[in-house]
Amino acid sequence: MKFTKKERQKLLLDTLDKTPFITDEHLAATFKVSVQTIRLDRMELSIPELRERIKSVATHSFGEEVKSLPIDEIIGEIIDIDLDKQAISLLDITKDHVFARNGIARGHHLFAQANSLAVAVINDELALTRKSTITFVKPVKAGDRVIAKAIVVSSDMQKNTTLIEVTSKVENDTVFVGQFSMYRVTNS
Amino acid sequence: MKFTKKERQKLLLDTLDKTPFITDEHLAATFKVSVQTIRLDRMELSIPELRERIKSVATHSFGEEVKSLPIDEIIGEIIDIDLDKQAISLLDITKDHVFARNGIARGHHLFAQANSLAVAVINDELALTRKSTITFVKPVKAGDRVIAKAIVVSSDMQKNTTLIEVTSKVENDTVFVGQFSMYRVTNS
Repeated sequence: MKFTKKERQKLLLDTLDKTPFITDEHLAATFKVSVQTIRLDRMELSIPELRERIKSVATHSFGEEVKSLPIDEIIGEIIDIDLDKQAISLLDITKDHVFARNGIARGHHLFAQANSLAVAVINDELALTRKSTITFVKPVKAGDRVIAKAIVVSSDMQKNTTLIEVTSKVENDTVFVGQFSMYRVTNS
Repeated sequence: MKFTKKERQKLLLDTLDKTPFITDEHLAATFKVSVQTIRLDRMELSIPELRERIKSVATHSFGEEVKSLPIDEIIGEIIDIDLDKQAISLLDITKDHVFARNGIARGHHLFAQANSLAVAVINDELALTRKSTITFVKPVKAGDRVIAKAIVVSSDMQKNTTLIEVTSKVENDTVFVGQFSMYRVTNS
């Protein structure tokens, strides 16, 4: 089904509201138009390109907020963080992340993104993973953009333990889920 | 307590029998002697240096045995494999594997070693991780040599599922345990 330009531009705004980090290529495929059409739509609607959209979210320096590790040790790019509550990161899957034979992203990269997000969300100087249960729900391929969201489920400060649930999605499809039991200590 | 040379050489042989991939540095620390003394002991006992010991185990080309992935995609070095039964790999932890702040190895490296060993032990062309429960038992530091052993616990060929348990040790201390539920298919 083809949309009118007006319909498409409305849907485009809705889609970007729900999935702000979708690429022009994915938008073009979704609306069955060319990438060039999407670019023109964005220009008319004054929507910056993806790189700029990510940058504008990330202008706030998360490096100052993250306490448990230096920001450059995080696998993936933090795009939102609220310490001890939740955090979101983005990881672009490239050829280097996949098995040569089947093009499927290797599990430890998805684990690394989720695990480092679980460390980053902790509002303490030391955070170590004690235990984790992870499920690979759907294969991820090169070119996919994985958005991981970590939510702090509970904290037991007497036991220095925090439980975190991480859900990773590619365009609204869940690809990975992990529960992380973290050990935390404040060095002071 | 100091040992006589004879006692030490006997203990050295026992230790190398139990932990063949221990370094001269660790042996020296264990027996409270210099590294040079250990080297002389090895020469007298005709025990090759560690690199040669690993090589002699690995002369048999495991690349031809592993079916589920190319050998260069395995994280760590396979030193023994018996398809659909068990496999052992070795990973030397370097500065690149640890958190800058506390020198503790990042969880995803231990996970990557264990997970790729769980893939490698499968006697099929396609093996994917479905679910995993992992426990980080003890912190691992730069300089540690992690020996991971994967054991196939059970297989349900009708459900294309194999359960694997991986235990990773540093000098006989368990540092990581993981259960992996693997999906497997033969492309034929």
